[in-house]
Amino acid sequence: MRFEVTILGNGSASPSVTRHPSAHALNVREQFFLIDCGEGTQERLLRAGVSPLKLNAVFISHIHGDHIFGLIPLMASLAMAGKQTPLQISGPPALERLLDFFTRDFGLQLSFPLQFTPIDTTKHRLVHENTSMEVWSVPLRHRVPATGYLFREKQDPVGTIPRSYAYLSDTMPSAKAAELIQGVDLLYHEATFADTERHLARKTGHSTATQAAKIALKAGAGKLLLGHFSTRYKDLELIQNEARTIFPETYIATEGTTFGIPVVKK
Amino acid sequence: MRFEVTILGNGSASPSVTRHPSAHALNVREQFFLIDCGEGTQERLLRAGVSPLKLNAVFISHIHGDHIFGLIPLMASLAMAGKQTPLQISGPPALERLLDFFTRDFGLQLSFPLQFTPIDTTKHRLVHENTSMEVWSVPLRHRVPATGYLFREKQDPVGTIPRSYAYLSDTMPSAKAAELIQGVDLLYHEATFADTERHLARKTGHSTATQAAKIALKAGAGKLLLGHFSTRYKDLELIQNEARTIFPETYIATEGTTFGIPVVKK
Repeated sequence: MRFEVTILGNGSASPSVTRHPSAHALNVREQFFLIDCGEGTQERLLRAGVSPLKLNAVFISHIHGDHIFGLIPLMASLAMAGKQTPLQISGPPALERLLDFFTRDFGLQLSFPLQFTPIDTTKHRLVHENTSMEVWSVPLRHRVPATGYLFREKQDPVGTIPRSYAYLSDTMPSAKAAELIQGVDLLYHEATFADTERHLARKTGHSTATQAAKIALKAGAGKLLLGHFSTRYKDLELIQNEARTIFPETYIATEGTTFGIPVVKK
Repeated sequence: MRFEVTILGNGSASPSVTRHPSAHALNVREQFFLIDCGEGTQERLLRAGVSPLKLNAVFISHIHGDHIFGLIPLMASLAMAGKQTPLQISGPPALERLLDFFTRDFGLQLSFPLQFTPIDTTKHRLVHENTSMEVWSVPLRHRVPATGYLFREKQDPVGTIPRSYAYLSDTMPSAKAAELIQGVDLLYHEATFADTERHLARKTGHSTATQAAKIALKAGAGKLLLGHFSTRYKDLELIQNEARTIFPETYIATEGTTFGIPVVKK
């Protein structure tokens, strides 16, 4: 009865040989979900031992290249592998133009039904639901329309207490978002910058580690994962330590690492 | 006075953690050129120590994902880095639709002039020229319009003998191509399959190692590099040995390896 997230990329937009662009793989009771899909995500999935064919749905936060450039290549590979089951993709409405261009104008032939759900990035809505989980959109504050996602496990017959994971990236700190994810077990919040660069964070629509920690505190989160780091930071301990002075249960979202939430019996 | 090619990817279309999609970096007297640009090429360039900002021109063979999916991400990064000098891109005409979609409809803002040269994939033509080099198109035989490229160094005042490199991928064996690149110093030819899978090669528009070696022999090439390997081959020595029985100067285009052609004084 797993509920765990594997970090596929913790970098930001500038290419790097040590960090990859945004992508998380979520395993909820052996159903697999992908959150954001930067360039190279399919290789990162393989490295993490998650078969792309197992993915049920993909959730995209916003239409910046470091969050989407891996999506069409992933779809092309799934088609080549003969995937038959539907692929559900949720994201800001503009994503549909990209999907349309490749599937209609560019000749990408899919072997599976593609089901796109446009997300109103200004609203907190139930955007996806299955037997084990609900997914809610969480409005973010970025330079372009952006949405976070809150994944809430449903209570199962065995009587586990539902677990939850929130993905908030890319965004400036949002008190509203903190309120919407109140009591979340595991929070991933971007921390592109350290507090010394907070003016740059504001200018570019991002957060600092300090701001991310304050959001975690305000949300009453169980644990905070930081990612989306600017390439200027070689040593991430600085970022982690900065956040821990405010929110001690802070961890760097190290690539290839899986963060699980244990089952808690009532 | 270098004339050398660095292999960035030697895999074919299926994603893999050991091989990356097609991309070669060519250094002609410290002018840098990129040939094909599969997903993740910008990271491979960084790993090879070639700054993407140094690229003068990009040559695309055909419009299949494993040869182009890294191009838009690369351009986005160049724009983010503030590149000012023109980027020249040559490739089949259909590539222009992709470039147009991203730059016009999708909001990719470039900081540099983009100069696209459509290549007639049925013709052998001079498609690019600068102070040190000529680039000629070489028609290929694939499932979609595809062109190879022949890079010919110009003789310089010091009196070196011009060096040459040909890139033939993806293609079935072409006697015509062998004729057009006659006497080439270094030939990269795809060898997606071993000869045991020659029926599959024919069906998919690819070559076997045996066929590639025969083309090298027919072209009177100095050296043959093989790449674009199917993921089914874990051990590439089999591929290399197969070709060497026909063309002894055959080498696997190992990723990260640089193959140079020494200056030969008259």
